[in-house]
Amino acid sequence: MTTLILKNLRPMGGELTDLNIVDGRFSATAPEGAEVIDCGGRILIPGLIEAHTHLDKSLLGMDWYRNEVGPRLIDKIDNEREVKVALGLDPQVQSERHAILAISHGCTHIRSHVDVDTHHGLAGVEGVMATREKLAGMIDIEIVAFPQSGMMTRPGTVEMMDEALKLGAELVGGIDPCGMEHDPKGHLDAVFGLAEKHGKPIDIHLHERDALGWFSMEEIIDRTIALGMQGKVAISHAFCLGAVDRGYVAGLQEKLAENQIHILTTAPASAPVPAVKELKEYGILTGAGCDGIRDTWAPYGNSDMLEKAMHIGMRNNLRRDDEVELALDICTFGGAAIMGLKGYGLDVGCVADCVLVEGATLAEAVVTHAPRKLVLKAGKVIARDGACVIEAP
Amino acid sequence: MTTLILKNLRPMGGELTDLNIVDGRFSATAPEGAEVIDCGGRILIPGLIEAHTHLDKSLLGMDWYRNEVGPRLIDKIDNEREVKVALGLDPQVQSERHAILAISHGCTHIRSHVDVDTHHGLAGVEGVMATREKLAGMIDIEIVAFPQSGMMTRPGTVEMMDEALKLGAELVGGIDPCGMEHDPKGHLDAVFGLAEKHGKPIDIHLHERDALGWFSMEEIIDRTIALGMQGKVAISHAFCLGAVDRGYVAGLQEKLAENQIHILTTAPASAPVPAVKELKEYGILTGAGCDGIRDTWAPYGNSDMLEKAMHIGMRNNLRRDDEVELALDICTFGGAAIMGLKGYGLDVGCVADCVLVEGATLAEAVVTHAPRKLVLKAGKVIARDGACVIEAP
Ligand SMILES: [Zn+2]
Ligand SMILES: [Zn+2]
Repeated sequence: MTTLILKNLRPMGGELTDLNIVDGRFSATAPEGAEVIDCGGRILIPGLIEAHTHLDKSLLGMDWYRNEVGPRLIDKIDNEREVKVALGLDPQVQSERHAILAISHGCTHIRSHVDVDTHHGLAGVEGVMATREKLAGMIDIEIVAFPQSGMMTRPGTVEMMDEALKLGAELVGGIDPCGMEHDPKGHLDAVFGLAEKHGKPIDIHLHERDALGWFSMEEIIDRTIALGMQGKVAISHAFCLGAVDRGYVAGLQEKLAENQIHILTTAPASAPVPAVKELKEYGILTGAGCDGIRDTWAPYGNSDMLEKAMHIGMRNNLRRDDEVELALDICTFGGAAIMGLKGYGLDVGCVADCVLVEGATLAEAVVTHAPRKLVLKAGKVIARDGACVIEAP
Repeated sequence: MTTLILKNLRPMGGELTDLNIVDGRFSATAPEGAEVIDCGGRILIPGLIEAHTHLDKSLLGMDWYRNEVGPRLIDKIDNEREVKVALGLDPQVQSERHAILAISHGCTHIRSHVDVDTHHGLAGVEGVMATREKLAGMIDIEIVAFPQSGMMTRPGTVEMMDEALKLGAELVGGIDPCGMEHDPKGHLDAVFGLAEKHGKPIDIHLHERDALGWFSMEEIIDRTIALGMQGKVAISHAFCLGAVDRGYVAGLQEKLAENQIHILTTAPASAPVPAVKELKEYGILTGAGCDGIRDTWAPYGNSDMLEKAMHIGMRNNLRRDDEVELALDICTFGGAAIMGLKGYGLDVGCVADCVLVEGATLAEAVVTHAPRKLVLKAGKVIARDGACVIEAP
C-alpha cells in the first residue's frame, strides 16, 4: 500500500502544512523512509466528484461529429440511437477515454448514467463495466442503468433494465415521466419497482419545467415516502426548481429536504436550474456533473469538475468568495455525500484521494482551473501537470 | 512593413492553402524572399474582437481580492469606487496586463468602457490611453467614456465626460437610465447631447430587465431617430431582449433593425440575454465581449473571446455546428462591423490580423479553445503558443 509525505501544501486553502499518507490514507504519523513530494505551497482539495455524466456516449478521440440534429429532445434521442451504430461507437473505448480525461482534471469518482435500450441492449453497461475494471485503483465508477429511449415507449426495456441491475449497475435511472414517457404512472412505478426489487437507489433525469416538472417531482416524492426510500433517491437536473414561481418551489424544496431527496445539477446556461444557495439553506444535499461531453447531443464539455464549479458559480450568479467556495463544495463534498462515499475528505483517516490546484485561494483555483499539478488516488499518483499517468486508447 | 508567407492553413476551416502577406495585408502574390511559416494544417480565423470590456478595472496580477460585496448593483458600484483607491489600482498598469492577456488569446481589437467619475476624474481614460500608445501596433483599443457611477446622481460627471471626449475617448457611454440614474430623461438627454456635441457614436450599458428595459430602450430608439444617429448607437447587455414576452421583444427588435442599432452581448449565464439567433434573423449587428474580468465585481473571466464564443453558444443553447459558427462570427465579424473596422477579414487586401486555432472544424476550435498557436497583427507575430511576445508588467 502507498505511503507518502506531502510537504508544503495548504489543505482547502488554509495554513501551510505537511500531510502524511500511510497505506493509502491520511495519517497523523509520518511514515518512515517514505517518498516526499514538495507541493510548492499549493492548495490541496479532495478528489473532484463527477456525479452526473454519460461515459458511454462521448465521441472523444473520434473524428469530429458535425451536429445537424433537430431542436427537440426526441430528435436528439432518436438521432443518437442510430448514429451510435453508424459511427461504430465502442462504449468501452469511449468510456475509457472519457474517464482518463476526467482523471487528468483531478476527478476520483464518477457516477455515470449508461443507456439501456432495446437497440443496444446491455452493450453500454458491459463497456463501462469493462472500463471500470481496467481503471480500478485509478478512479471509482458507479453505474446508473438509464432508460434513455424510454421504458413505456419501448416495450422490452424494463426487462433489459432488470438485466442491467443484475449485471452490476448500482442505481436505477429514469427520465422525464411525462414529457418523454407520456405515462408518468407507468414510468415511475417501473423505476421504483426495479429499485425495490433490487434494493438499489434511484437517480432520475428530470428536465420537465415548471408545473409539469413539479407534478413529476411530487409523484417521485410520494413514491419515496410510500417505499420508505428517504435518502436513496436523487433527481438530476430538476429544471423545475428553477421556475419563476418561487413560492411553489419553496414548498417543493421543503418536501425534498424532509425526505432527503438529493439534487444533482449540471448548471446549463440555457435552462432554468435549481438555485444552489437555496438548496443549501434547505439542507438538500447537492452534487454536480458535466453531463454528456462532446457527444451527438452537443459539442461542449471536457470533464473538468473544477471548471464546472466555475460554471455553477456563473449560472447561479455567485460572486463572493464564500459563494464560489460553495460551488466547489458541491463538486467535492456534495457529490461525495450523495454517492455515499466513506472516508472522503482530507482528515486523518480519510482515503488519500486528492488534488493539488493552482491559486492563492479556493475561489482563484475555481476561476482559473489551471492544469492540476498532482492528482492522487488512495495516495497513488494518477495525474501530473494536467495529464493522466496512463494514455487514453 | 511586414511580408510573410503562411503555408498550410485552412482559412475559416476550409480547404488547405497558403496565404501571402505583403506590407501587413493579405496579398494575391507571394512576396519574394519572405519568411515562411508552416501552419501545420491549422484553421486560420481573423483576429478576435473584444467589443465590450473594462480595461481600467481588472485586478489581474494583483493580490487576490476577497469579494465580500453586497448583492445589489449599487453595492458593487460604490464598493469599486472606494476599493480602487484602497488597493492602489493603476489604470495604466492594469489595462496593459489585461490587453496583453487578450493578445495572448488572439484578440486584435478591443472596445473598452472606461470609468469617468468625480472621484477618479480622467485617471482611467488617461491610463488606458497610455496603454493604447504603449501597445500600438499590437492591439487597437477604442475607448468609451463610461459614467459608471452615474451622471444625474453625481453632479459634475457630465463635465468630466465632456473632458474625456475632448481628451480622446471615441464613444459616449451610458448606464441604466432608470435603475441606476433614476432620471431617464436627464441621463439620455445628456448622453445624446454629448454625442451630438462631439460627433461621436454611443454605446450604452442597459441591464434593466423586462418592461423597465423596454421603456429605456424605446427612449434610446426615439432619440436615435430624432438625431438621425442610425448606425451610430449600440446597446450593451440589453437583458430586456431576453424577456419572456417574445411578442413585445419582437416589436423592439424590428425597431432596432430599422434604425441600425447594434447589440453587444456578454452572454452571462445568470441573466436574461438577447437571443443571438433572433438578432441575426432581424439583421441586427451583434458583437460580444467578456465584460469586466477578475475585478471587484466578480472573479470570473480571462479575456479569451474564443472561450466567450463557447459561452455564447452554451447560453443560447447552440448545439449544431452552424449555430456554434454563429457564436464565433459574433466574436469576429460581428464585433468588427460594429466597431466599423476597415479591411477586416481574410480576403486579399484585408489587414493581416489573424489567429491560428486548434481543431478540425470551427466548432471544435470554439469548444476546445486550446492555446492559440499564432496570432498576427498586420502580419507581425504578437503571440505564439498562447503567450504574448511581450511580458505583462
Ligand atoms: Zn444526463
Ligand atoms: Zn460592462
